[in-house]
Amino acid sequence: MARPTPLSGFPEWLPADRIVEQHVLDTVRRTFELHGFASVETRAVEPLDQLLRKGETSKEVYVLRRLQGTETDEVASTGDTGGLGLHFDLTVPFARYVLEHAGHLAFPFKRYQIQKVWRGERPQDGRFREFTQADIDVVGAGDLPYHFEVEVPLVMAEALAALRPAGVPEVRILVNNRKVAEGFYRGLGLEDVDAVLRSVDKLDKVGPERVAALLVDEAGATAEQAAACLALAAISGEDRGVVDDVRVLADAQGITSELLEEGLRELEALVVAASERAPGVVRADLKIARGLDYYTGSVYETVLVGHEDLGSICSGGRYDTLASDGTTTYPGVGLSIGISRLVSRLVGARLVSATRSVPSAVVVAVTTEDTRPTSDAVATALRARGIPVEVAPAAAKFGKQIRYADRRGVPFVWFPATTAPDGEAVPHQVKDIRSGEQVAADPTTWQPPADDLWPSVRTTD
Amino acid sequence: MARPTPLSGFPEWLPADRIVEQHVLDTVRRTFELHGFASVETRAVEPLDQLLRKGETSKEVYVLRRLQGTETDEVASTGDTGGLGLHFDLTVPFARYVLEHAGHLAFPFKRYQIQKVWRGERPQDGRFREFTQADIDVVGAGDLPYHFEVEVPLVMAEALAALRPAGVPEVRILVNNRKVAEGFYRGLGLEDVDAVLRSVDKLDKVGPERVAALLVDEAGATAEQAAACLALAAISGEDRGVVDDVRVLADAQGITSELLEEGLRELEALVVAASERAPGVVRADLKIARGLDYYTGSVYETVLVGHEDLGSICSGGRYDTLASDGTTTYPGVGLSIGISRLVSRLVGARLVSATRSVPSAVVVAVTTEDTRPTSDAVATALRARGIPVEVAPAAAKFGKQIRYADRRGVPFVWFPATTAPDGEAVPHQVKDIRSGEQVAADPTTWQPPADDLWPSVRTTD
Repeated sequence: MARPTPLSGFPEWLPADRIVEQHVLDTVRRTFELHGFASVETRAVEPLDQLLRKGETSKEVYVLRRLQGTETDEVASTGDTGGLGLHFDLTVPFARYVLEHAGHLAFPFKRYQIQKVWRGERPQDGRFREFTQADIDVVGAGDLPYHFEVEVPLVMAEALAALRPAGVPEVRILVNNRKVAEGFYRGLGLEDVDAVLRSVDKLDKVGPERVAALLVDEAGATAEQAAACLALAAISGEDRGVVDDVRVLADAQGITSELLEEGLRELEALVVAASERAPGVVRADLKIARGLDYYTGSVYETVLVGHEDLGSICSGGRYDTLASDGTTTYPGVGLSIGISRLVSRLVGARLVSATRSVPSAVVVAVTTEDTRPTSDAVATALRARGIPVEVAPAAAKFGKQIRYADRRGVPFVWFPATTAPDGEAVPHQVKDIRSGEQVAADPTTWQPPADDLWPSVRTTD
Repeated sequence: MARPTPLSGFPEWLPADRIVEQHVLDTVRRTFELHGFASVETRAVEPLDQLLRKGETSKEVYVLRRLQGTETDEVASTGDTGGLGLHFDLTVPFARYVLEHAGHLAFPFKRYQIQKVWRGERPQDGRFREFTQADIDVVGAGDLPYHFEVEVPLVMAEALAALRPAGVPEVRILVNNRKVAEGFYRGLGLEDVDAVLRSVDKLDKVGPERVAALLVDEAGATAEQAAACLALAAISGEDRGVVDDVRVLADAQGITSELLEEGLRELEALVVAASERAPGVVRADLKIARGLDYYTGSVYETVLVGHEDLGSICSGGRYDTLASDGTTTYPGVGLSIGISRLVSRLVGARLVSATRSVPSAVVVAVTTEDTRPTSDAVATALRARGIPVEVAPAAAKFGKQIRYADRRGVPFVWFPATTAPDGEAVPHQVKDIRSGEQVAADPTTWQPPADDLWPSVRTTD
């Protein structure tokens, strides 16, 4: 077999970069769990008809068939005629999971879900065909209080802040509220709210002039209405002043809207709570539209400061109907971190790196193959106290065994006790191969410095 | 949308059972890392021609196509005409990863890999269409010393032993050596070794009489040769006596074989090391054949004691050619735990269960919605010291908030400090809802008992 070439859009990491990804995953998981979110995994496949309920995503779906399966097989195994496809996000499968297991879940139900998803899109920088997402959602049965719309971005702010010591850049979580936008647009006399949102959503890509033209052409706005929409989109801030700015603009346009007022009260509550609990992280930004039409309240996007070109690394919002079985409606609010997008930038731009490529803190040298059990016993004693250790693969010259450790970034090499040719007992010794310092040590008590125990993730120097 | 029905062969766990699965995954990961195995993840897809190199698995593969993709698209995106399929194990993708990244890996390379795999097989108890595997392999460039064949089952023995405190039954790792089998069969005069192995592999399923008939019909054996094969397959033991038994049998058959001798020396080294490092766990069992023809040395199977009907939960072996690029050959040895098979039995037979269904150790009650920030502050103070906490979803009557905690198995409810109607200050209090005991507490110092901090996994009572 010739050397295989990478598959575009299907990223894979070398072991040291995988340690960066694991650090990100372990950190966000811990934050989610500290906030009481329960882990859920769903199967990778869903019936195609469920995946295609939102027509706009149909082009992205990977469809499955068994190589030697017949159509009859597929129908029999899936219970429908549509076949199966790989999920393209974790929201559609979670909605199905909630309906399927509602009788066994306690609501409001807080879950996190960290899994791969697949989209048959054209691969670009930070946009993959297979990637890992880390989602949190809170879902209620019948109703879901607004305060969860404050909680979820603060949990994400905490998860992303917990990555800062590893050298991950700071983030800005941008929030808006659909009720504000819809109340404002309707108050202006624009009834095709989805068309307005779709146009405003393009602001960062095409600029205000082009958006103004789109608003006129596609949302039926007058030039004055388009200007008012752009004026709203220009408002942003990190305190309740942002709400005052919207009220001033609405008053100037003669808008009175109960929906707008409700949205502003919500947005204010979010901004005030965020300024206390995550100061400088959450920012109200009235241009955040999120194209998807199922959001009904708060919407969120997140940029990595200094890496805005990457696009949003953590997005989501409130949806009044995450799922419905005809009797009960399940509203939800959630956010999703694009783990692969984030990690690809962290390692691709060498922002952070792992201190070594293997878990081992120690390589135990092997003096001769006959005494390998002595080396194994040292390793066992160290592992019993939680120290990651491997034993050298061969009883080569010690210089070669030290190079084995060095190539992997392992900081310590252990030389087992032995008997010198002159019959003198040589005690166990451990060498810090960075400093060259070598000291006598006891495998039942020696401890590496805490910083060296496990590989850590740090700002690349 | 009506209530969805489960998809046969695609298991999903409720939150409490997912905690059992997470415990299993976290435990095996920790053991693998303590032994210096580095984490690798590979993409879910491989070119179909690679997946189908072993013809016997072709029926199991799920093939992918983009819903709106053209054939030209697929060719352009995959670089070949065969399209893509989901991987059916983690060995084929790892072999490809080794070849693709060989220049960036340090050999011998020890990796673990925990991922989903997919097989379009008919679902049965413990046999799924989507399931999680946890693999370890050691791969060398050019050569790979035998001692790794001793190491990998001992790592697995340790990983599975680490699950025992949670109530997972003990395991028996059964080992054999292809060289012993092949040397014995050839020494007997049987040249179609693969046919003999395939027949012997059916021993547990069809019994010795039927296997004897198969050996005659399909491996060209005489009745006497078949009887000798069955006599070999009947040998098992946990110390070097098992090697003596094989030698006695071989001598009685007049067999002299260098390959047999080499295999017996290897098997003896494994049994001796295992009897010291994992007594009672590893057992030489000469009937273990493993149908796959790429194993060339040790082969392993693992049964959960008392649940032998489940089949092997951890299998693998040594293969002289894991991968080859024409210049370098990469031999390997590895074992794979069937996580989904194991977990499905653990939760399905109620062998183990989680102490609660959510991470939270504490629910902080909310006195009124106006004082929710007070409750949030208590939660923040507790989380800052690593205590998983959630805040009650609504300022309902305290009885209802206690039931909220109780339904999820959360042991503690925290009542924030408040002012009584008579103006008297009421301090923070925390209630153990199991005992009903309620005490004054300080959110900056209170600590739950260590056993209650995180959900744990225990033998079901």
